[in-house]
Amino acid sequence: MPKNRDAARANLENLYRIFTVPESPESTLGAIDQAIADDVAGFLQTHIVAIERNLEEIETHFASATIPEEPTYVSEYTEFVKDHLVAHSVHTAAPGFVGHMTSALPYFMLPLARLMTALNQNLVKVETSKAFTPMERQVLAMLHHLVYRRDDDFYPPWIHNSQYALGAFCSGGTIANTTALWVARNRLFAPDGEFRGIAQEGLGRALQHRGCDGVAVLVSERGHYSFGKAADLLGLGRDNLIKVQTDDNNRIDVKLLREECRRLQDRNILPLAVVGIAGTTETGNVDPLEALADFALELGCHFHVDAAWGGPTLFSDRYRSLLSGIERADSVTIDAHKQLYVPMGAGMVVFRDPTALTAIEHHANYILRHGSKDLGSHTLEGSRPGMAMLVHAGFSIIGRKGYELLIDMGIERARTFADMIRLHPDFELTSEPELNILTYRYCPRAVQRVLAAATPEQRRCINDLLDQVCMLLQKHQREAGKTFVSRTRLRFASYGEELTVLRVVLANPLTTDGILAAVLAEQCEIVQLPEIQALLRKVEEHCAALS
Amino acid sequence: MPKNRDAARANLENLYRIFTVPESPESTLGAIDQAIADDVAGFLQTHIVAIERNLEEIETHFASATIPEEPTYVSEYTEFVKDHLVAHSVHTAAPGFVGHMTSALPYFMLPLARLMTALNQNLVKVETSKAFTPMERQVLAMLHHLVYRRDDDFYPPWIHNSQYALGAFCSGGTIANTTALWVARNRLFAPDGEFRGIAQEGLGRALQHRGCDGVAVLVSERGHYSFGKAADLLGLGRDNLIKVQTDDNNRIDVKLLREECRRLQDRNILPLAVVGIAGTTETGNVDPLEALADFALELGCHFHVDAAWGGPTLFSDRYRSLLSGIERADSVTIDAHKQLYVPMGAGMVVFRDPTALTAIEHHANYILRHGSKDLGSHTLEGSRPGMAMLVHAGFSIIGRKGYELLIDMGIERARTFADMIRLHPDFELTSEPELNILTYRYCPRAVQRVLAAATPEQRRCINDLLDQVCMLLQKHQREAGKTFVSRTRLRFASYGEELTVLRVVLANPLTTDGILAAVLAEQCEIVQLPEIQALLRKVEEHCAALS
Repeated sequence: MPKNRDAARANLENLYRIFTVPESPESTLGAIDQAIADDVAGFLQTHIVAIERNLEEIETHFASATIPEEPTYVSEYTEFVKDHLVAHSVHTAAPGFVGHMTSALPYFMLPLARLMTALNQNLVKVETSKAFTPMERQVLAMLHHLVYRRDDDFYPPWIHNSQYALGAFCSGGTIANTTALWVARNRLFAPDGEFRGIAQEGLGRALQHRGCDGVAVLVSERGHYSFGKAADLLGLGRDNLIKVQTDDNNRIDVKLLREECRRLQDRNILPLAVVGIAGTTETGNVDPLEALADFALELGCHFHVDAAWGGPTLFSDRYRSLLSGIERADSVTIDAHKQLYVPMGAGMVVFRDPTALTAIEHHANYILRHGSKDLGSHTLEGSRPGMAMLVHAGFSIIGRKGYELLIDMGIERARTFADMIRLHPDFELTSEPELNILTYRYCPRAVQRVLAAATPEQRRCINDLLDQVCMLLQKHQREAGKTFVSRTRLRFASYGEELTVLRVVLANPLTTDGILAAVLAEQCEIVQLPEIQALLRKVEEHCAALS
Repeated sequence: MPKNRDAARANLENLYRIFTVPESPESTLGAIDQAIADDVAGFLQTHIVAIERNLEEIETHFASATIPEEPTYVSEYTEFVKDHLVAHSVHTAAPGFVGHMTSALPYFMLPLARLMTALNQNLVKVETSKAFTPMERQVLAMLHHLVYRRDDDFYPPWIHNSQYALGAFCSGGTIANTTALWVARNRLFAPDGEFRGIAQEGLGRALQHRGCDGVAVLVSERGHYSFGKAADLLGLGRDNLIKVQTDDNNRIDVKLLREECRRLQDRNILPLAVVGIAGTTETGNVDPLEALADFALELGCHFHVDAAWGGPTLFSDRYRSLLSGIERADSVTIDAHKQLYVPMGAGMVVFRDPTALTAIEHHANYILRHGSKDLGSHTLEGSRPGMAMLVHAGFSIIGRKGYELLIDMGIERARTFADMIRLHPDFELTSEPELNILTYRYCPRAVQRVLAAATPEQRRCINDLLDQVCMLLQKHQREAGKTFVSRTRLRFASYGEELTVLRVVLANPLTTDGILAAVLAEQCEIVQLPEIQALLRKVEEHCAALS
C-alpha cells in the first residue's frame, strides 16, 4: 500500500515541522504575535468585540465533544481563535473594566512570560529548574521580608536551606489558603508520644488522640469562599468554618468572635485557626489584625491572614499601617496575579516560622529526595511553571517605590470615586473604601430618606426592588461592553439585611476619574430602560405610600 | 519641596510608561523576544550554558531577601535574567534531555501562549473569561470522550450545562488526583438521613456515621507521590494509603491487593478508592485496569485511574488496548503538560458520571452564583489562567492522528533503546518498556551472571556498590550537560530488593536513535572516572571471591 505509506510519511513530516519550523512572521499567527508585541493594548481593543454576544451563541462554536481526527493548519486554527475565542473574550485590561481583580499588565510581563514558556522549567525539582529554584526561594524570602520585616541576618540560614522553605509558591490564593490551613491542622495534631501525627494517622485518630469532637476555623462572613473549600477538603467540614458577623465597616466583630469560640468550647470543638482578612474580596476592608493576633495567642491557635488582595499595601509608607498586626500572623497569603501585576496563575503563602512547612513535607524516590533543594517537597502542587520569575521581575523592575505608587493611586482613586458617588443624587455608597474596593447601588436620595425611616418590612419591599434594579443595571452594562462593574450580595450591619450592590475594584493605573464618571453616567442611562423604569416606579409608589 | 515633587512626577511618568509603552524591538528584552519568535530552539541552545554550574554559586545571585527599593531599567534586569537565570536554567526541550517528562513544545504553542497571557482571562467565572468558559468545557468534554467513548448523543445535555462539569481543569496532576479522591470521599460520605454529608459535617462525624475506623486508598507501590499528599490533605492519613506490591512488570499484584483489603476489613477500615496507574511515573507500566475495575465494583468503591502520563496512549489505534478498562474508571487524570505537549501548568481530571463533581460544588455571592456557568464552582482551585486554550489548540492542530504518531514513535523508540541496552555488554535493562519509559543500570554482563547465582547478602553487597555507580554516573552526566537521564530507587520483584536505576522518558519527537546511542557512549566514558573505577574494582573483587 504505497499510498498509505506516502500518507504516513507526509504526516510524519508535518509533525516534525510543527516542532522545528517557527511560525513565519507573515503567517496569521505570526502576525498576531507581532501585533501583540508591538501594541498589546491596541490589539485587545481591536480584536475583542465590545458588545457582548449571548453565551449560548458562543457555545455553538464549542459544541463537538470529538477531538478532530485530522490535523488542522495553524493558520486555519488561528482564524478560528480570532473569530470565536479572542473576539468574545473579556477585555480584563481595559481601564473601564473595574469590576474584578484583573488589571492591565506592565508591558515587560508579556515578553518575560514568553521567555518563561519557552524555557518551560518545572519548579517541582532542581533537575528541571536549576537557577529557577534559587530564584523562587528568593522571591519567597522577599515576600517573607515584606510581611515579617525580619533583620537581614535572619535570612541567610533559611533562604536556600534544603530542609526548609519560607513559603510556598502556588497557582493562586485558594491553594495558598489551603496550604496554610493544612500546615495549621498538621501542627495542631503533630506527632505526640504514641500518636504519630495526623499526616500519618488521619483526622479520625487525631480527634481521638486529643479527645475532641472537631476542629474549627474562624473567619468573618466576608472571608473568601476558598476557606469553605479548604474546610471541606481538609476534612473539617463546612459546619466548622465559623463565619463571624462583621461590624458596620465589614470587619470581623471581635466580641462575636469570642462568643463563637465559647460556643465551640461548649461543643468540645478545638479552634484550629483564626483567619484575618487584609482586603476582603467584596469590600476591601481589613480586619483588626492586632486584636485577632492577641486573640489567637490567647487561644493558642494558628493565626492566618488572607492578604491575597491587600498584601501589597505593605509597599506603601502611607498606608502600610492599615495592615498592622500582619507581622504577627503565622501565615500570610498574597496573590501575585492581583496587586503584584503578574499574569493569572500566581499565589504565595509565607510562614513566620521557617520550619512550619515541615508539617506537610513529603518525599519521593525519583525526585524530592531528602537533602535536595527541590521546592516540590513543601508544596501542595507537584509540577509547576516558573511564574515566580514574573514576580521577581516585578519586584526588580517596579521596585518597592513603584508598587507604592500603584497602591497609593488605587486607594486615592477609590476615595475620589466614593466622593463622586456620595455627591450623586441617584447613588448610595454602601461601603466606604478602606483600600481600593468599594460597593454602591442605585438608590435615589429621596428613597434613601424613606428607607432610613421605614420599618424592616417596608425596607425589605423597597430593597427587593432595588436589588432587581442593581442586577439588571450590572447585566446591561456588562453586555454593552463599554465599562464593567461587578455585583454581589452582602449583609450590611447598618441595614440588618442583605443587599445586592455594585462592586468596584480600582487597581488599574490606567483608570482615570473621567472613566469613573463615565461609569456612573452610563448607569444613569441604563436605568432609563423600560424594564428598570417599571421597577423604579414601583419603588416610588412604595415611597409615596410611606411618606 | 519642588525637588521631591519633580521626583514624584518622574516616578509616576515612568510607571505609566511600563503600562503603556511596549518594549522596543531594539531593546534587550525586545531582541530576546524576537530571537525566541524566530528560532526558539536556537535561542535555548545559545543561551543555556551546557556545563552545569554549582547550585551554591548560582544562589549568590539570589541572596538578598529585600525587595529593591528603586525601580530598575527593563534592559538592566533583562541582562541579569540572561546571565543568571536563563544561562543556568535547564534545557528541558533538548532532544538529549530524556530524563524527565518535559519535551520540546510544538512551535505554535509559544505565540498562542503569549496570546493567552495577553488576554489574561480568569477561568473561575464567565465574567472574566466569556468564550474561554465554553472552550474549556469543550476541552473537558473532548477528554471525557477520549476516555469514555460515549455516543455523540451523550454530550449535548452536559457539555455546557450550568449545573454540572464533566471534569476539572487543574494546574497539574496532583490537583487532578486530589480532586478525584476528594469527590470519591464526599460521595462515600454523602448526605444520608440526619447526616448532612462529610462536606458539611467533617470526617470525624462521617466516620461515626458509618461506624468505621478509617477509610483507605489502595494503589501500587509505583503510585505517584501525590496520592500520599492527597491522603494527608483529605484527612485520611498516610497510613491509609495502602501501597500494594507490584509484580515483575511493575504492575499492581491483584492477589496482594485482595489480601490488603481483607486486612482493612479486619481493622474496620472502609476502602474509599482503588487507584490504577496508566503509565507509572518511574517505569511507564500500566496496571491491569480491567481486573481493578472488577475489583472496585466488587468492593463497591471508587475506581480512579492516574493516567497523567499514559492517558494520551488512547490516541493510538495500535496501543490503545494497553489501557483497556480505563473507560470503566469513575475518574481519570490526564496531564496536558506531559504528552499533550502543552507548556507547564495544565492537568485535567474527568469523571464518568457527569454529576460526580456535584459532591464538591461550592458557591459565593459575587461569583459562582447558582445557575451561572462559572467553572469555578466545580474546581479545587479558584482563579486560573486560560491554559485550556493550549489543549484546545493541540487537539485541533495536531489532531487525533498527529498525537497517535507521537505516541507510537515514543513507544517504538523506547523499544529500540531497550534493545540497545540489552545488546550492550555493560548495561542491564531493569524494566522493559511498556509505554515509552524504561529503567536500566550500569552492570557489566559478568556481574549480572554472578548476581544471578549469589545469595541475598552477597547480592546486597554488590548492588550497594552498583547503586553508588549509578548515582555518580547520573550526577556527572547531568553536570556535563550534553545529555540527561534521571535516576530513582525501586524495589524490583525479581531482585527482591531496592536498586538505584537510571530512568529514561522518550516523548520528545526530536530524540533520535543516534542521541540514545550517544547517551550510552557518554555513560561508558563517565565510568572511566577514578571515583567510579574504584567502585567497580570493588565490585570485581566481590565477584572474583564468589566465582
